[in-house]
Amino acid sequence: MTRKILSGHGSGGKLMNDMIETLIKGTLGPDSIQLDDSALLTIGAETIAFTTDTFTITPLFFPGGDIGSLAVNGTVNDLAVMGAEPMYLSCGVIIEEGLDMEVFEKILKSMKAAADRAGVKIVTGDTKVVQKGNADKIFINTSGVGRITGRVQRAPVREGDKILISGCIGDHGIAVMAERNSLTFTKGLQSDCMALNSMIAHVTEAYPGSIRFMRDPTRGGVASVLNEIVKGQPFSAKLYENDCPLREEVKGVCEILGIDPLYAANEGKVVMIVSAEDAEGIRDRMRETPEGKDAAIIGEITGEYPGKAYMETPVGGERILPLLLDEQLPRIC
Amino acid sequence: MTRKILSGHGSGGKLMNDMIETLIKGTLGPDSIQLDDSALLTIGAETIAFTTDTFTITPLFFPGGDIGSLAVNGTVNDLAVMGAEPMYLSCGVIIEEGLDMEVFEKILKSMKAAADRAGVKIVTGDTKVVQKGNADKIFINTSGVGRITGRVQRAPVREGDKILISGCIGDHGIAVMAERNSLTFTKGLQSDCMALNSMIAHVTEAYPGSIRFMRDPTRGGVASVLNEIVKGQPFSAKLYENDCPLREEVKGVCEILGIDPLYAANEGKVVMIVSAEDAEGIRDRMRETPEGKDAAIIGEITGEYPGKAYMETPVGGERILPLLLDEQLPRIC
Repeated sequence: MTRKILSGHGSGGKLMNDMIETLIKGTLGPDSIQLDDSALLTIGAETIAFTTDTFTITPLFFPGGDIGSLAVNGTVNDLAVMGAEPMYLSCGVIIEEGLDMEVFEKILKSMKAAADRAGVKIVTGDTKVVQKGNADKIFINTSGVGRITGRVQRAPVREGDKILISGCIGDHGIAVMAERNSLTFTKGLQSDCMALNSMIAHVTEAYPGSIRFMRDPTRGGVASVLNEIVKGQPFSAKLYENDCPLREEVKGVCEILGIDPLYAANEGKVVMIVSAEDAEGIRDRMRETPEGKDAAIIGEITGEYPGKAYMETPVGGERILPLLLDEQLPRIC
Repeated sequence: MTRKILSGHGSGGKLMNDMIETLIKGTLGPDSIQLDDSALLTIGAETIAFTTDTFTITPLFFPGGDIGSLAVNGTVNDLAVMGAEPMYLSCGVIIEEGLDMEVFEKILKSMKAAADRAGVKIVTGDTKVVQKGNADKIFINTSGVGRITGRVQRAPVREGDKILISGCIGDHGIAVMAERNSLTFTKGLQSDCMALNSMIAHVTEAYPGSIRFMRDPTRGGVASVLNEIVKGQPFSAKLYENDCPLREEVKGVCEILGIDPLYAANEGKVVMIVSAEDAEGIRDRMRETPEGKDAAIIGEITGEYPGKAYMETPVGGERILPLLLDEQLPRIC
């Protein structure tokens, strides 16, 4: 039987991870596609970070952002969470013939504004136009390079480390879902789409040796990132339900639609694993920035369920947070 | 009236250049999207080249290559013609749901083989899957970074300089067109899809100061590259029809279909503008390599028609080679 590629193969969940591990790394080699956000490379005397991301989100414009700002911020964040200073972006677009020129212009303006805010430059690009029905309006690839500053000295994650998030969970995924479903009771609900590089630099310059791991929980959300961290490890990731910052509007939509916000995409948040002794200091330093004002310590690394992520509920119960097979919401980024 | 994006906006011709000059550079800034193949950037102590290209070619497999080898070689060549040593590539794929997994696997294997041949590593990637009808099988973006070796010291193009090409003209475009039209008399006709970095290094290490300009004549072909070189300049580019190397099979297809091979895409050729005194030496050095065995001096820079490219025919006539509005063949790369 011919195996087909399914929607879930691009989801950030188990289907995708399995395809990357077996087919892609099996073919391109073990050093090819990293589950890390960027590759760290040596060029002459410098170490650089290099990353790529393709954006196929629908709708193109949503509360709090659009495909242009998302394409810039997403790649800036992939560099920043590797401890790099994001510097230069490329922009490759695939446009479906017939797209309004002014829609393209609006997206370009949004990219420029986002790049200026993040302090990066878009330096090279490519434009392809395909016939109607061969794409969906516009897809954008951004790749990025940044300089490794040496501010982050990664150390292995260990039991007792704390889990931090820089703000409220699930805003992007839930805002896009509400927009797609034309939900009317979600006034004020917005994507968190934003660049995190200056916030991360603010934290890492004060705590260079205390951060074990950083990742932006995009496709698949916080639960998927935690699963990646603990996969195959002798430790587990435990979350405290009551400590997870969650907007009321997000909670409302999640309850009505039966979605777990821990699996919803974020586009302006970072999950950090940090040393227990500096966790509060790092959280407070995050809170000094607009991007990190709702930062919270949401859990810790334990030895209870090796290889698993799980949640402790307010009444003391526990539930495992599995790696989902599929993403709840296709084309979220 | 709402302006729409047309097929020609992605063609390599006048419509695309106008859109880049006005809309894209107008919005993203003058340093953003270069018509050059790569951006040259400073990172700490190093100068790197950075480039991006998206591949939407149809059919995915064609005589002499496929979308995978094309995506690797295309980006390797964009780095090499800037005088960079190509080092690392990213790979961002958009897959249409339902694609056979073994087609994807075949393409990945082809990318790996092409990367090995070119001596580059694919180090980071991203996979998106969209619903049926929202893409056409698979689109691939590759971005690339390379180190500037200092072997090429560019000098301004001037009257009397010679125009060189590393081999036969139009093979890629005509092979793909023949494949699409199921032409049966084109046995042996193959795309020239290949990496040029080692050939270019072989030439530039011997003639570091004699090369004014290099470009791989992909979309829009040799005529479009020459138009870019002379645009707005006080000089012109003159070609000698009889000196342009052209395969018999390519000539045959072009005559039957009424296509000018000078506008057909190449994916394994470089056009160089070089000093007159070293032109023959450079051509001979190219011919020492398999990639450059059919290299030829095909024309020169003159003062006759400033800003124009033109052809001298064997009987002494002249015809202008205008920048086409549109590409003859959409989705050629």
